[in-house]
Amino acid sequence: MATGNKMDMHPALIGSLSPTVSPDKVINFSPGPTSLPKSVENEIAASFTKSGFTSLALSHRSPEFIDILDKTTATLKRVMDIPDNYEILFTHGGGHGQFAALPLNLCHELSDVATYVVNGTWSARGRDEAQKYCNAETIDGKDPQTNKFTHFPELTEEDINVQSKYVYLCSNETVNGIELHRLPKLPESRKHIPLVVDASSDFTTKPIDWNGDNVGVLFACASKNIGHPGLTMTVVRKDLLGEGKASPLCPGVFNYTTNSEAGNLWNTPATFNIEVVGLLMNWLAREGGVAANEQRSIAKSQVLYDVIDNSNGFYATPVPNKMLRSRMNLPFNIKGGDDTLTKKFLIESWEAGMVGLRTLTPFGVGDYLRASLYNGVTEEQAKTLAQFMITFAMNNA
Amino acid sequence: MATGNKMDMHPALIGSLSPTVSPDKVINFSPGPTSLPKSVENEIAASFTKSGFTSLALSHRSPEFIDILDKTTATLKRVMDIPDNYEILFTHGGGHGQFAALPLNLCHELSDVATYVVNGTWSARGRDEAQKYCNAETIDGKDPQTNKFTHFPELTEEDINVQSKYVYLCSNETVNGIELHRLPKLPESRKHIPLVVDASSDFTTKPIDWNGDNVGVLFACASKNIGHPGLTMTVVRKDLLGEGKASPLCPGVFNYTTNSEAGNLWNTPATFNIEVVGLLMNWLAREGGVAANEQRSIAKSQVLYDVIDNSNGFYATPVPNKMLRSRMNLPFNIKGGDDTLTKKFLIESWEAGMVGLRTLTPFGVGDYLRASLYNGVTEEQAKTLAQFMITFAMNNA
Repeated sequence: MATGNKMDMHPALIGSLSPTVSPDKVINFSPGPTSLPKSVENEIAASFTKSGFTSLALSHRSPEFIDILDKTTATLKRVMDIPDNYEILFTHGGGHGQFAALPLNLCHELSDVATYVVNGTWSARGRDEAQKYCNAETIDGKDPQTNKFTHFPELTEEDINVQSKYVYLCSNETVNGIELHRLPKLPESRKHIPLVVDASSDFTTKPIDWNGDNVGVLFACASKNIGHPGLTMTVVRKDLLGEGKASPLCPGVFNYTTNSEAGNLWNTPATFNIEVVGLLMNWLAREGGVAANEQRSIAKSQVLYDVIDNSNGFYATPVPNKMLRSRMNLPFNIKGGDDTLTKKFLIESWEAGMVGLRTLTPFGVGDYLRASLYNGVTEEQAKTLAQFMITFAMNNA
Repeated sequence: MATGNKMDMHPALIGSLSPTVSPDKVINFSPGPTSLPKSVENEIAASFTKSGFTSLALSHRSPEFIDILDKTTATLKRVMDIPDNYEILFTHGGGHGQFAALPLNLCHELSDVATYVVNGTWSARGRDEAQKYCNAETIDGKDPQTNKFTHFPELTEEDINVQSKYVYLCSNETVNGIELHRLPKLPESRKHIPLVVDASSDFTTKPIDWNGDNVGVLFACASKNIGHPGLTMTVVRKDLLGEGKASPLCPGVFNYTTNSEAGNLWNTPATFNIEVVGLLMNWLAREGGVAANEQRSIAKSQVLYDVIDNSNGFYATPVPNKMLRSRMNLPFNIKGGDDTLTKKFLIESWEAGMVGLRTLTPFGVGDYLRASLYNGVTEEQAKTLAQFMITFAMNNA
């Protein structure tokens, strides 16, 4: 038992990101915040060693910052193919801020109806927050066979109240490992209802058919694929903006119309965070745009799912439907959740430089570990983990 | 007229922060965001060139970040002498976010009363936002003689509704140049009402008698004296926290109790921004704490007010009462607002490396320029501006 206690205090088991290998050998599989692509991190470092002000010290009203803001918006629109009938907002508050902002902007009355597809931790949190500001109806996304969040429900006419101001979904559930690789089509009779998408954890990793899929609002907190914490990017279709559309209870910092009319300068925006998003968008453009990025995401995740599927049950992932498996976050357990083996895996992978495979969150996933493969993780790094998993399975089968 | 137009397009007149002098000669007098003390900026640069992860890439659940958060909080409490009956929150949303958060946390019902002392741009914005969430009564802080925001009203028993959930004030009005060097005392019969203080632009520059002055909540956006945009620090007295105290309409990201109970991890906090606040607090401790910082603030502002007061009316500041003049933001005009001389001053000072003296904000201050003297500005830099002003006056009187 003494050994067990000692093991529990091992830094690998409490989520340490500082293993004993040389720092340049460390691979960050954290579910976010996490590393950005190396070339972007190098550009950030260079901006802090150049002479003159860094963007930390730039007034948001200065022509220097306005230039950063304009270029970031333009590159983002170009690489993500965002049509001109959409507005880009950079606001405070993170994803949780948007959970409140959405109903407060799209529902004028507390009695207005919105439909929430709940198929995991984040869509549930979004729905719970929305219930303060609208009549949030739920489409239960649990698999009826298992009563677990392991699938995505069909969206039928009967399930979607025709009065809904919007239909909300989370396109990648980081905890449950479920991803919609393309946005779903609403039934013909519900196509007038705008889709609202929490794309916090998969934005930039697949194309979006903005008008074709009737996207009303799509938001992404920056700290997974496009930057670091403290900023949220929200794409809003312009017909949803306008004086008097938001609830009178909407805080100014969350009001889409107010922020849009002020050109993202209604209050002081997170200037440096916006610059980092711009650097990430330049990286995306350099690396072949969103189509090439999707191919990289497929490749990175496939190499790990292949190990899991070919492990004769040594590893298992909770999502049976391969069409819904997340390319961003891969939950897996070891021998059905064997505690000793799971700890051994965590310690040995950590000692080999792989960190972030178990984060101490309040959203328990039981015995599952999780590899997150955002833009900061390369295909080679995913292969390093895959090779480790194969070797570990051979040694411990 | 052609000359006039050409002058209007001069970079100095549109707020450029990049004059033609060598970058290390530039002095940033911006009203915020602005520069941090040089040694803090150097520490930030060093963190980006060390090997291993920067805090941009740290999971907020990792022991490495928790250590940063704990140390930042501890140092802040120590240098600002914050007693144990107060909680420190680091939230999103900036000062404007707190304008909404305050009534949403301290008023359970929309009909609850709060008293707002409005004596400038920011207290007016705070009151306007609060009117969405409570019955915000106003103490008009305009000077009855001039009908301008150039003084601070006496706070009488008659002016403060005894039912008020709080009395709100802004301890430094950046646009109007008015500062309370100590917090006001409420009349004896109103001492049960907690004070709420927007200290966004003067926090760390003078001591606060937390319990003695009955401070209920004090907040500061980071981008003036303690960091960069994307973070707000809020100090909340613990008796104001508790399940069910906030309005049911309070967004989770703004809920003091929720964020306090979650140890600032209810949603992903602005990790890097918090690290920077920690570096600033270490700087404050190294440089003699808040008492020494107040002496520096007095010295920096005095050297400039002396130039103004001794200029025979060449320069003028709008605040007649010296006891209320801001040490943080010094508005001044030139020969009663002479347009040609003002532009000449802006261009010549910019060419000498002094920037940020006029920012293109929506809060017009007429013909006034403004020198802001936050923690990033040294006494020597203030003297450089003073010397420039003296020479300019001699050459253009």
